[in-house]
Amino acid sequence: MTYCLTWRSSLEGMLVAVGLLAAAAGCSGPGGAPPPAEDASTAAAEAAVADPLPSWNEGAAKQAILDFVERVTDRGGADYIAPEDRVATFDNDGTLWAEKPTYFQVAFLAERLRALAVDHPEWQDTQPYQAVLEQDAEYLSTIGMDEVLELVAATHAGISQVEFEAGARAFLDTARHPRFEARFTEMVYQPMLELLDYLRANGFKPFIVSGGGIDFIRQFSEAVYGIPREDVIGSSLKYEFRETDSGGDIYRLPELGSFDDKEAKPANIQLHIGRRPILAFGNSDGDIQMLQYATDGSGARLGLLLHHDDAEREYDYDHGTERALDMASQRGWTVVSVRDDFRRVFPFDD
Amino acid sequence: MTYCLTWRSSLEGMLVAVGLLAAAAGCSGPGGAPPPAEDASTAAAEAAVADPLPSWNEGAAKQAILDFVERVTDRGGADYIAPEDRVATFDNDGTLWAEKPTYFQVAFLAERLRALAVDHPEWQDTQPYQAVLEQDAEYLSTIGMDEVLELVAATHAGISQVEFEAGARAFLDTARHPRFEARFTEMVYQPMLELLDYLRANGFKPFIVSGGGIDFIRQFSEAVYGIPREDVIGSSLKYEFRETDSGGDIYRLPELGSFDDKEAKPANIQLHIGRRPILAFGNSDGDIQMLQYATDGSGARLGLLLHHDDAEREYDYDHGTERALDMASQRGWTVVSVRDDFRRVFPFDD
Repeated sequence: MTYCLTWRSSLEGMLVAVGLLAAAAGCSGPGGAPPPAEDASTAAAEAAVADPLPSWNEGAAKQAILDFVERVTDRGGADYIAPEDRVATFDNDGTLWAEKPTYFQVAFLAERLRALAVDHPEWQDTQPYQAVLEQDAEYLSTIGMDEVLELVAATHAGISQVEFEAGARAFLDTARHPRFEARFTEMVYQPMLELLDYLRANGFKPFIVSGGGIDFIRQFSEAVYGIPREDVIGSSLKYEFRETDSGGDIYRLPELGSFDDKEAKPANIQLHIGRRPILAFGNSDGDIQMLQYATDGSGARLGLLLHHDDAEREYDYDHGTERALDMASQRGWTVVSVRDDFRRVFPFDD
Repeated sequence: MTYCLTWRSSLEGMLVAVGLLAAAAGCSGPGGAPPPAEDASTAAAEAAVADPLPSWNEGAAKQAILDFVERVTDRGGADYIAPEDRVATFDNDGTLWAEKPTYFQVAFLAERLRALAVDHPEWQDTQPYQAVLEQDAEYLSTIGMDEVLELVAATHAGISQVEFEAGARAFLDTARHPRFEARFTEMVYQPMLELLDYLRANGFKPFIVSGGGIDFIRQFSEAVYGIPREDVIGSSLKYEFRETDSGGDIYRLPELGSFDDKEAKPANIQLHIGRRPILAFGNSDGDIQMLQYATDGSGARLGLLLHHDDAEREYDYDHGTERALDMASQRGWTVVSVRDDFRRVFPFDD
């Protein structure tokens, strides 16, 4: 199936993705059962007792991280950076959790659209709704920003913030990944969870800077990543404060506030954090500007790019990440290979 | 001077304020020397040794704060609130620091405009620049949003973020308050500094939610309030990520991102924090919606409104706060009187 390979890390890609939902299982190899776990016991024995990153294989990537953290936290050293400046920014889709066979939030969008379709018989023959309901990949591959926003508006707006959050949590509590059959919140990379903990233990403050929806991510960021809601940056709709009979509340307007991708990432980092990160971790072309912004600063800097090259344990794809991979080699960003650098991929792996 | 009394807590008010800069000293009573300090020694002796709010007089306001914090932190109690939900939002101008005789950021705007005027001879006879340069209060009292944004654009935009921050810090390091002759960063309320510490010690996270500029406040929020840059919400321009010869950097565009006043405050709280505050502290009509949003939530809530009624030690004014005072009595928000509830006003008072 060709369209399994046409993933794009952009809003356009999100649209294409909507059409991929049904086809997902067919794209993903073994299907259903988790892939056989590695025999990790030998490897674990080899690792130092105090290893803060036990799910990382020894290698250049792990060493680059350890060296960087040591340098910037060494009070006497030339590269010392004060704790308040130890800002680390992480992309979410494809960096902290998986993004295949489709962005998980797109699965949420499609589920909501199907549920709401009961009250919207006209959607059966109105685009772009019809295409989502019929999983018409061909139509969806051609639609533009206006139609995406229409789909987002229909599923993510026109409701109160409280209502939206309840819906997102219900989805995250019940929906399952088509290939791994785990909850989406279990589809997070174990090595990245360890990295977040390791950075926090060394005085860093990790933030999420995602093209995904800010309020969708906030429903699990605290429980899953230990990242509080206020440290999540993402795409957003406009909000409106309304006074109702039951008191003042926030409503979600069908209007884009920010699409937090590419050059919007550094701009939103300025708006929400007000400080240039010293470490940035991404995986796709949408993360290039964030990586540039972080690594172009003076002093010690670390840019990291996750490369998905493990079809057996996760996924293997380059599409939408080609430019980022080029830039990484030009600019000295550290490429992290899922195949070579991740000893364990998901928390449910042995 | 009538226009000393026509202060308004709104963008419109900021404009009026531009014209008040020269007139400031004339509005503010004693001028120059700090007002005579109270004899605080007796009062201090009366206060309990462990009093977390020593600059607050005993009374209903102080008691309301102590009771609220005790209730929401009592694990066994019916009003217990988990630490991650202990979000407290504070207005800045007139709540954490003084706002008379003019918003301090307006003094910064005027200083920058005067400095830049050397390269802009045309400003001498072009409005609204001419009015600021000539401190023409009459003209400035009539100008609208377009002209304000023009002034902000000329002084706060068209430069890199790095350049802006250096300018703001230089101003804050050198400029002095016309009446108290202290640096503006010393014009903060000692009781509020103690309240911020007390809340933090009880697991609260205080945020600033100001109509003032987010990046202006960030230049002193950490050092003065202990509030890190990422916990500051304010009015903002749009940012642009640009690649230059010296690397990628953030530029400030002459375009409004958000004017963080009135109903924009709850909306920006949602965008930046993603959680409804349980405590909000403001002082003017621009804070009404933030106070409503916080206090309309379920469970224990505390709304606080600072009333400036002390011409001797600070200022005495109601204009721009009338509606908020009405709402406070209707809704049970606690009114804090500078005269009655603040034992000490500024850190430089004895």
